[in-house]
Amino acid sequence: MSNELEAMQEALRAALGGVRGANPLVGAVVLSPAGEVLSVGRHDGAGTAHAEAAALAALAPGQARGATMVVTLEPCAHHGRTPACSQAILDAGISRVVHAVADPHGPAAGGAEHLRAAGVAVSQGLLAEQATELNRRWFAAVADNRPYTSVHIAQTLDGRIAAADGSSQWISSPESLAANHALRARVDAMLVGTGTVFADNPRLTARTPQGDLQARQPLRVVLGEREIPADAAIRADDNWLQVHGHDPLEAGRELRERGVEHLMVEGGAQVTAAFLSADLVDELIISVAPTILGAGISSIANLGIETLSQARHFRWDPAADVVRHGSDLTLTLIPEGKN
Amino acid sequence: MSNELEAMQEALRAALGGVRGANPLVGAVVLSPAGEVLSVGRHDGAGTAHAEAAALAALAPGQARGATMVVTLEPCAHHGRTPACSQAILDAGISRVVHAVADPHGPAAGGAEHLRAAGVAVSQGLLAEQATELNRRWFAAVADNRPYTSVHIAQTLDGRIAAADGSSQWISSPESLAANHALRARVDAMLVGTGTVFADNPRLTARTPQGDLQARQPLRVVLGEREIPADAAIRADDNWLQVHGHDPLEAGRELRERGVEHLMVEGGAQVTAAFLSADLVDELIISVAPTILGAGISSIANLGIETLSQARHFRWDPAADVVRHGSDLTLTLIPEGKN
Ligand SMILES: NC(=O)c1ccc[n+]([C@@H]2O[C@H](COP(=O)([O-])OP(=O)(O)OC[C@H]3O[C@@H](n4cnc5c(N)ncnc54)[C@H](OP(=O)(O)O)[C@@H]3O)[C@@H](O)[C@H]2O)c1
Ligand SMILES: NC(=O)c1ccc[n+]([C@@H]2O[C@H](COP(=O)([O-])OP(=O)(O)OC[C@H]3O[C@@H](n4cnc5c(N)ncnc54)[C@H](OP(=O)(O)O)[C@@H]3O)[C@@H](O)[C@H]2O)c1
Repeated sequence: MSNELEAMQEALRAALGGVRGANPLVGAVVLSPAGEVLSVGRHDGAGTAHAEAAALAALAPGQARGATMVVTLEPCAHHGRTPACSQAILDAGISRVVHAVADPHGPAAGGAEHLRAAGVAVSQGLLAEQATELNRRWFAAVADNRPYTSVHIAQTLDGRIAAADGSSQWISSPESLAANHALRARVDAMLVGTGTVFADNPRLTARTPQGDLQARQPLRVVLGEREIPADAAIRADDNWLQVHGHDPLEAGRELRERGVEHLMVEGGAQVTAAFLSADLVDELIISVAPTILGAGISSIANLGIETLSQARHFRWDPAADVVRHGSDLTLTLIPEGKN
Repeated sequence: MSNELEAMQEALRAALGGVRGANPLVGAVVLSPAGEVLSVGRHDGAGTAHAEAAALAALAPGQARGATMVVTLEPCAHHGRTPACSQAILDAGISRVVHAVADPHGPAAGGAEHLRAAGVAVSQGLLAEQATELNRRWFAAVADNRPYTSVHIAQTLDGRIAAADGSSQWISSPESLAANHALRARVDAMLVGTGTVFADNPRLTARTPQGDLQARQPLRVVLGEREIPADAAIRADDNWLQVHGHDPLEAGRELRERGVEHLMVEGGAQVTAAFLSADLVDELIISVAPTILGAGISSIANLGIETLSQARHFRWDPAADVVRHGSDLTLTLIPEGKN
């Protein structure tokens, strides 16, 4: 049905307005029995309404009766931070569900089955390729049993993250720092290498521009062998841990087991390079300050690349490629990769 | 008169839409005797109409009689690539000229005197500070007897201009290359260091995307001591020269004497650093490709900066801060500096 095709295209567009992270991007469109668009919804990141719920919430009571729900991902079956979408769809009286791809996430999967068992007509596969591409890296992370991983770099125009003497606080504008701390409050864990702990003694907490702790705090993680000094700022409370060793995939799996679904890696150069080398970077966020150092630590350590044709390629995040934060530009990119 | 103040503000805004280079940014507004805006003009770079001429060209014959010309820079007195503006203003019957700042450029200066001698009321100084700031770097270049100098860098996200093996062709997207060649056709000279000649053997010509030579070609300049090989591509015809030594200001003055008013420096890392260290960069144009190398040559060689507080600061060009060229971003910045 061409109405459903157009609705799925609209759902895919709506999804892009969301936030990448612990949850996939999802968009949903409710079609009347006559094929008219009744509402559009999207998911705005972990803890907010799912796309189906957002689309249903925009309707008058009873308006969804007999309607079709067109959604980019199989409606979830579990009651996590928000109620299960398959149940909400049943409660609203939706009689047909068209979803692009199945939900690969263990606890959430099974929504289609639940709906079918309750007598809803369910069809899967419309624009499946586009819907897979939309969350390509998120699907890869789930398949790997590791968190969706964002890497954040604060650098100068010439790609330096610290000056020759190691000073790096603060390369970024106050507005970039505020945006970074808002992101910290959204992720489940922040990770740095021991090198950064020794160089900067970072707190890795999510703070307000006034310096107060935000309500939601990420788990603070250090990767590496060296012992963390007893007076390190990262030890301020129990919400931290050290992952020994140098394997970023192992670290990710250990964190996923502890419930970390969105990880933010914040350097330094060696740890960022390790995640890149292992193709574990799902999203690259670079704050570029309008400054030049000409020396110091480059943002990414050696990846073993010898010649230009081996360069790692990225594409600009279609939703938020370039954003201005005060005097800085924040660039968001997604790796072109094997998966 | 508040009409003239508003007109000067509008002229300043119009000027920003122009093109930085051999000529300053200039905007002009023609006000009727009653104080209404009759037309607005701006200068679009060397070889195109001056702002006053552009504003007059938008009027009907006779419409400027008795009008006031409000312009950000003293009208020029010389007949260069375009006719003298002071004469055009007289011919149009303008009776009052309000300009923000004097023209410091030897051959062009004297327009105000010419106009006064012909009976036009001339007033200088309205919003002089803003008009000086608008062309701060251009005034500095003229005062130094050197060309207005743009530096172009093609780099990866991590600030590399060549891979570990020295390969650097082509970091940029075809669209960035095309934009770069359009700029080459506008400047008077292109300069690189001997290091770049030995590494890349560049032609430094302005070419079309099909590879044909454009009509206007820059003088090709190499800075450094080493002898340029007889078969170097830069020697293809006589339109090149080597400036011996390592002094970028001396090189600039020598080029200015030869008529070069807009110079583009295109690397490599050491020569770019030398121009930055000497505070001779008037405009920094960075094409950023969405790639990462993790090793290779950093875009800017050592500037002697040891700690973060010594970083060189830039501000985004208000007219064209971030432009997309295919998959690349082109960033344009102006140094915050002593002058
Ligand atoms: N501007 C920014 O965004 C930013 C952010 C963070 C850091 N920085 C700067 O970056 C600098 C620190 O960078 P860095 O590269 O030295 O430190 P790093 O990447 O934070 O830590 C490197 C250390 O991590 C351990 N490690 C864990 N996994 C590894 C792996 N797979 N490969 C290699 N090492 C691994 C190793 O230590 P063990 O011997 O203990 O195992 C290694 O020495 C500091 O100057 C800091 O200021 C800047
Ligand atoms: N992606 C890009 O935008 C881009 C553009 C250009 C070059 N590149 C890459 O950059 C690399 C070359 O960079 P580079 O830094 O080696 O070369 P460079 O800056 O082009 O040339 C360095 C040489 O210039 C001479 N020189 C002149 N004035 C100098 C000064 N004030 N200070 C120091 N040297 C001065 C010296 O040679 P003498 O001994 O002869 O005096 C010096 O060895 C190549 O790999 C090339 O591919 C990339």
